[in-house]
Amino acid sequence: MPRDIFPESEYERRLERTRTRMEEEGFDAIVVSDPANMNYLTGYDGWSFYVHQAVIVTAERDEPVWVGRNMDGGGARATAWLSDDSIRTYSDDHVHSPVDLHPMDFFAGVLEDLDVADGRIGLEMDAYYFTAKSYVRLQRDLPEAEFDDATLLVNWVRIKKSERELEYMEEAARISEKAMRAGLDAIGEGVPEYEAAAAIYDGLITGTDEYGGDYPSIVPLMPSGDHTDTPHLTWTDRPFEDGDPVIIELSGCRHRYHSPLARTTFVGDPPAELERAADVVVEGIEAALDVVEPGVTCESVEKAWRETIAQYGIEKEDRIGYSMGLGYPPDWGEHTASIRPGDETVMEEDMTFHMIPGIWTEEIGMEISETFRVTSTGAETLADFPRKLFTS
Amino acid sequence: MPRDIFPESEYERRLERTRTRMEEEGFDAIVVSDPANMNYLTGYDGWSFYVHQAVIVTAERDEPVWVGRNMDGGGARATAWLSDDSIRTYSDDHVHSPVDLHPMDFFAGVLEDLDVADGRIGLEMDAYYFTAKSYVRLQRDLPEAEFDDATLLVNWVRIKKSERELEYMEEAARISEKAMRAGLDAIGEGVPEYEAAAAIYDGLITGTDEYGGDYPSIVPLMPSGDHTDTPHLTWTDRPFEDGDPVIIELSGCRHRYHSPLARTTFVGDPPAELERAADVVVEGIEAALDVVEPGVTCESVEKAWRETIAQYGIEKEDRIGYSMGLGYPPDWGEHTASIRPGDETVMEEDMTFHMIPGIWTEEIGMEISETFRVTSTGAETLADFPRKLFTS
Repeated sequence: MPRDIFPESEYERRLERTRTRMEEEGFDAIVVSDPANMNYLTGYDGWSFYVHQAVIVTAERDEPVWVGRNMDGGGARATAWLSDDSIRTYSDDHVHSPVDLHPMDFFAGVLEDLDVADGRIGLEMDAYYFTAKSYVRLQRDLPEAEFDDATLLVNWVRIKKSERELEYMEEAARISEKAMRAGLDAIGEGVPEYEAAAAIYDGLITGTDEYGGDYPSIVPLMPSGDHTDTPHLTWTDRPFEDGDPVIIELSGCRHRYHSPLARTTFVGDPPAELERAADVVVEGIEAALDVVEPGVTCESVEKAWRETIAQYGIEKEDRIGYSMGLGYPPDWGEHTASIRPGDETVMEEDMTFHMIPGIWTEEIGMEISETFRVTSTGAETLADFPRKLFTS
Repeated sequence: MPRDIFPESEYERRLERTRTRMEEEGFDAIVVSDPANMNYLTGYDGWSFYVHQAVIVTAERDEPVWVGRNMDGGGARATAWLSDDSIRTYSDDHVHSPVDLHPMDFFAGVLEDLDVADGRIGLEMDAYYFTAKSYVRLQRDLPEAEFDDATLLVNWVRIKKSERELEYMEEAARISEKAMRAGLDAIGEGVPEYEAAAAIYDGLITGTDEYGGDYPSIVPLMPSGDHTDTPHLTWTDRPFEDGDPVIIELSGCRHRYHSPLARTTFVGDPPAELERAADVVVEGIEAALDVVEPGVTCESVEKAWRETIAQYGIEKEDRIGYSMGLGYPPDWGEHTASIRPGDETVMEEDMTFHMIPGIWTEEIGMEISETFRVTSTGAETLADFPRKLFTS
C-alpha cells in the first residue's frame, strides 16, 4: 500500500520514457542503483542505500523489479507501487559477509530469472553506491551478458519535471525560505556555529504550518570567517566573530525534492569590498536569469553572468549551476546539464536548475543562489527571498 | 592549520599500522576512497564525497596524499595534517564532464608521480563512492599496474579505539542520551512524525552545554505503527496514533564519532505482548553484554542472546551488532566484525560495538540497543539510558 505521493500513471510515463531511451541504446535491461533513480521509477524511499540494492528494468517485463536486503522488503512494499512479485530480497548473510558471498550473486540470479542474463545490460557505472566490486562480481556471475554503461540514462529522463514534481519543489522552497530566515536570525557574534546549524535544521524539519520537511541530501553548509573558500566544511563549536563573512547554503526537502538556496551574511559592519561584491553578484545572477527561456543553451546563461561581472574587472569561467530536483545523500544534483562554458544543453520548459554563482578574493567570499524553473517565456525562481548581503 | 582534534602522533600510529597491513598484503600503494578511512588517515573532514576523492598511501612516501576537487583543496588544508605538497587537486572540468574526462585520469597521473604506476595497488573495491567507472578507468589509464582488492584494509586498522577516540564516542553518547530524551518527550498522540524528528535533531545538533553535535551518518529512524517492520523508512507527516509502537534509532556524533542508541516507546497503553517482548529483549541484551570480555568471539556473544530468548520460545539467528565508530553517510558501521553466527572475530580491549537486537512478530516490533566498549574485564556501555519499554 504505497503512500500516495504520485499516481501510478506518473510512474508509468516515467517508465515509458526510460524504455524509449533503453531501446535507443539497445539495452535489454538496466540495473538502476542510484537511489534517486530507484525512487523515480518505483517510489521506493528508505535509508537503505548503505547496502547493495537496485531496480531492474527490462524491455519485456511490465513492472520494474526492486532488489534489496530482506529487512527492506517491507519498506519497498510500503512505498513502491510494485506488486509483491516485483520485490525480490536477499538474506542477511550477504551483508558484509565474511565468506565469499556478495549481494550481486543474488542480483545475477534475478537477472537470469528475468531472462536477460545473456542480453545487453546497462549498469550505472559511475553512480553512487554501485561499487567496483559489484561490477566485477556481475561480470563473473553472468559471463554471457554484455555489460555497458548506462550512467545518467534515467537522470536525463528526470530533467523535465511534472506538475506534481514542481509542486513538491515549491513546497521545498517554502521550507528553504523558513530555514534560511532561521539561520540568518541565529547567526551573531559569540554564537557557536552549531547553534546556527540547529536553528536551520529546525526550520528544515518542522517545515511549514501545513507540512513537515524531509532530510536534505546535503547538510546545511555555512563556511565562515577564514573559511568562506572551503565551501564543503561543516559546522564546528567555533563562535562567530565580529568581522566574519558567512555563506549559508541549504535546501528544504519534500518527498525527496529539493529547492536549494544560498545567501551571504556578515557579522558586524561589512567592508565596502563585500558590499560591492554583493552588488556585482546580484547584477550577475539577475542578468543570467534574464536570458533563460526555452531554446537557450546552458552555456549562454553562464555567458550572461560572466559578461556582467567582467564589466567590474572580474574574469572567471565557472560552473554556476546545475539541473536538480529529486535526490538522496550525498547530492541533490542530477549530474546532467550544467550551466557552464561548453554545455550546449538546450533549456526546455519545466527543467529546474540551481544557479549558484559567487565571487571569491583572498579576503572575501560572496554567494547568492536561486533555484528556478524554465517557464514558457523565462525563468521563475522557486523561493522568494531578498537578494542582498545580510548582516548579523 | 588543521583543527586540533587528534595530535599528529596519532595519525602517524594509524599510518604505521596501515603500512604494516599493506606490507603483509604486498601492496606498493592503496587508494582509500571511503570518507571515514580518509578522515582516519589524514583528518580530512568535509561534505565533498559526492565527487571523486581519495587518499593515497604508498609504502615509500612518509605522508599520504590527499586527492580531490580543486574547490576542496582549501578544506583539506584546513582539516588534514598534511603538508601542501601532499594535497593534489583536479580542475572542475573533471566534474560530471560532458567530454571524455574523468577524475581518475588525474588520479592516474598522481600515482605515476608517486612512482607506483607499475606497482601493486590496492583499491577499496566495495567501498562507498569508489564506482565501477573509477575502476575501469584506472585500469585503462595505468596498464602496467596490478590492481587488487583492499576493501576493509583500513577498516580493520580502525577497530581498536584510542583514548581520544573513546572520549569522542563518550561525548557522542551524551548527545545520544539528550536526543533520545527529546524524541521520547516529543512523541504523542496527534503529533506528526516530523515534529519528533525535529526534536531529535535539535538534541543531536545543539549537543550538550559544553559542545555541539555533528551531523550523524544516518538520519534518525523512527519506524512506527504498522511500520515497525520497515526499519529504514524515514519520518512522514503522519500523526502518531494511540496504539502505535515506535522504535527510535539515532546517534549523537562528535568529530565524526558515533554512539548509536535505540529504544522503543508505545503511544497509549502498551499491550501485554509488547511488555513481555520488552522484558525478553532486556534480558537477552543483558545476557549478551555479560559474556563480553577480551578473548571471546563475536559469535559467542550472539549465542548468549539467542539462548536467552529461546527460553521464551523465540528462535531466530540474527546479526545483532557490529563494530562501529567513525563514519560518514550513509553508514556509521565499520563493516568488519559482526555479532552474528559464524563470526569468529575475537574481541579485544577498546573495540567498540553497537548491539541492536530486536524481536518482531506480525503484531509488534521491539528493539533496545547499546553501544559498548570492550574493557579489560567486560563491556562498558557508553550511554546511560533506561533499558525498558517507554510510553508516550
